[in-house]
Amino acid sequence: MTRDADARARACLTAVAPPGDLWLGAMLAEHGAAEVWAAIAAGAAPPAVPCEEDGRPGPQARETLLRRWRRWSAAAAQVDAEQLLSASAAAGIRFVVPGDPEWPGRLEELGMPGSRRTYGLWVRGAGDLRNLCLRSVAVVGARACTSYGAHVAAEMSYELAERSVVVVSGGAYGIDGAAHRAAHSAGSTVVVLACGLDVDYPRGHAGMFADIARTGVLVGERPLGATPHARDFLVRNRLIAALTPGTVVVEAGRRSGALNTASHAAELHRVLMAVPGPVTSAMSAGCHMLLRDWNAGCVTCADDVMAQIGPMGDLPEGPVRTSAALAPEHARVLGAVSGSGTGPAVIAAACGEGLDTTMRILGMLAASGLVERCPAGWRLVR
Amino acid sequence: MTRDADARARACLTAVAPPGDLWLGAMLAEHGAAEVWAAIAAGAAPPAVPCEEDGRPGPQARETLLRRWRRWSAAAAQVDAEQLLSASAAAGIRFVVPGDPEWPGRLEELGMPGSRRTYGLWVRGAGDLRNLCLRSVAVVGARACTSYGAHVAAEMSYELAERSVVVVSGGAYGIDGAAHRAAHSAGSTVVVLACGLDVDYPRGHAGMFADIARTGVLVGERPLGATPHARDFLVRNRLIAALTPGTVVVEAGRRSGALNTASHAAELHRVLMAVPGPVTSAMSAGCHMLLRDWNAGCVTCADDVMAQIGPMGDLPEGPVRTSAALAPEHARVLGAVSGSGTGPAVIAAACGEGLDTTMRILGMLAASGLVERCPAGWRLVR
Repeated sequence: MTRDADARARACLTAVAPPGDLWLGAMLAEHGAAEVWAAIAAGAAPPAVPCEEDGRPGPQARETLLRRWRRWSAAAAQVDAEQLLSASAAAGIRFVVPGDPEWPGRLEELGMPGSRRTYGLWVRGAGDLRNLCLRSVAVVGARACTSYGAHVAAEMSYELAERSVVVVSGGAYGIDGAAHRAAHSAGSTVVVLACGLDVDYPRGHAGMFADIARTGVLVGERPLGATPHARDFLVRNRLIAALTPGTVVVEAGRRSGALNTASHAAELHRVLMAVPGPVTSAMSAGCHMLLRDWNAGCVTCADDVMAQIGPMGDLPEGPVRTSAALAPEHARVLGAVSGSGTGPAVIAAACGEGLDTTMRILGMLAASGLVERCPAGWRLVR
Repeated sequence: MTRDADARARACLTAVAPPGDLWLGAMLAEHGAAEVWAAIAAGAAPPAVPCEEDGRPGPQARETLLRRWRRWSAAAAQVDAEQLLSASAAAGIRFVVPGDPEWPGRLEELGMPGSRRTYGLWVRGAGDLRNLCLRSVAVVGARACTSYGAHVAAEMSYELAERSVVVVSGGAYGIDGAAHRAAHSAGSTVVVLACGLDVDYPRGHAGMFADIARTGVLVGERPLGATPHARDFLVRNRLIAALTPGTVVVEAGRRSGALNTASHAAELHRVLMAVPGPVTSAMSAGCHMLLRDWNAGCVTCADDVMAQIGPMGDLPEGPVRTSAALAPEHARVLGAVSGSGTGPAVIAAACGEGLDTTMRILGMLAASGLVERCPAGWRLVR
């Protein structure tokens, strides 16, 4: 089976089945996407999965699963892989599957236990999803945040971006938006959406999403045109937690969706952090619960976050991608960086790229641990 | 040696030596207070102590200790035990030593390691120091607190007092004062002072001290008339931590004296708690440090504190003092309390005490675990 057949099948699956379906995940693990998709599209019977993956045993449960399967088959009639991929490409959206160079390795941990793995990711933007996530942290919180929460989210995210740490968050108003805007002004960010990447939800963030796409990425599991439903946000939250070595909850009430992201981070054994706030504020009660009952680390600034996740996130020692594996333009930029430090304009002139492109590539090289910021601009690591 | 000879000697020692002197503590442990005081008063040589207790070895260190000893001997000439105790009694101040019924057993832990035990405690007020401290918590924080800190200290202390938990704190402006005032309005409090108990320091708290003395106690290691020096506050802080099963730091900057109290609590293996605040407030930075680096429990209200120290503090199961050991008026009040609940006025009428006295005694009986508050007033435990 070629990469293309697998990717096409996975793209189609995102168009008929909801993300994170345990049963479908088990089928994919057992039979591969092409075979599963062929069965769905043909209206054939579902391929067997090991019974312990089946969820609930018994004839009644089996009937529920079959109804689900028939729903997917019915929807499959409307889906054409080539059309879906070319329309997505026209909207600037690519499709990334396990095994692709841009696939973030951390997502594999969603497969243990049960297979809540994502079938594939839709990605929009100039950034490289894998590189961006290497040295990243999730900054999440309530939509209806206070000015205190928005201030802290912005301050912390800006400082993280200054330290070449990529901020990963949802696309909502409140903490998500404050974190993205601030981080974007000093670096790249990753927006994880619960809808199609061409659906600007919420509308008021359309401009911000377009800005972020110029250096960072938008990413999601839903296909072109998919509008978000309540359930999608909860399923999306597991991606935010899984893409990063750690999650910071900046401000959250006792029933905030951010606590759902926090629980995914805890399940995935990622670093869980919370920002304290006034005990008189109901909007910090969720954070205080994380500190008190969930053993979350208390973080008050970017330095506290860095201390919790380690200077390189959970990167193995040394650069993950060596310069030998770099794209030609990345290698040119890297070649123009000295050990003692070079200004970005000098680097851009030396490698023949524009300043914007050079800055973007420097950010990716930093995420890979090859270069780092210094007073003079950028320098080689070690 | 009689109790009186020991107590008289210890009272005199508080008048010549600073509290918490390790060398003097070692001498007291080895030779007893009467012998040590006799040597000081006679200008004799200091009695020998086991060399590991000696602090620093070598002739130079020995000379430092001897200078200290000679200073105490010189001051002893001005000290007359009978006069000191009768003048104190005239000011409503009694002297309590180890072995007395009112001696708080938790203070023994100050003796390990090294002997930072207190020589004896001056006590002023209608409360029983030991009973009050049984079910208590220290509520401490900055003098120059914010309105947020004062608000939280008051709210938490009032709720603790409502749950028959005694608040222990210093006598300073800021968090100390806010905690005492609020707790006093619903129960009894213990003020730990770094000066003589007749010295109202700070002056502005003279009225509050007088109020507290009516149901609670003021306690300290310094004799009548002693004014406080900077060092005294730090030495006093170990008493605040030692008298209680746990310490809550409500609001503290990075260099607040409250962190000194916190470090004593940690050393004594008491429960250490901190109240979070805005990360934008320098006045909460000390609390966040305790949460982040000292593993302090995050507490936002009295219920959080109760959960941390346990419903009865670190009391052994069941009442510590049985009714057989009670003073006659306490036994009379206890006899008037029913198992299903009795109002305080009914109890007062039945036992023939005034309402104020009855309320005070009920508080002590509650601290001993014999009675508890209930919707109808007070009822017997079990």
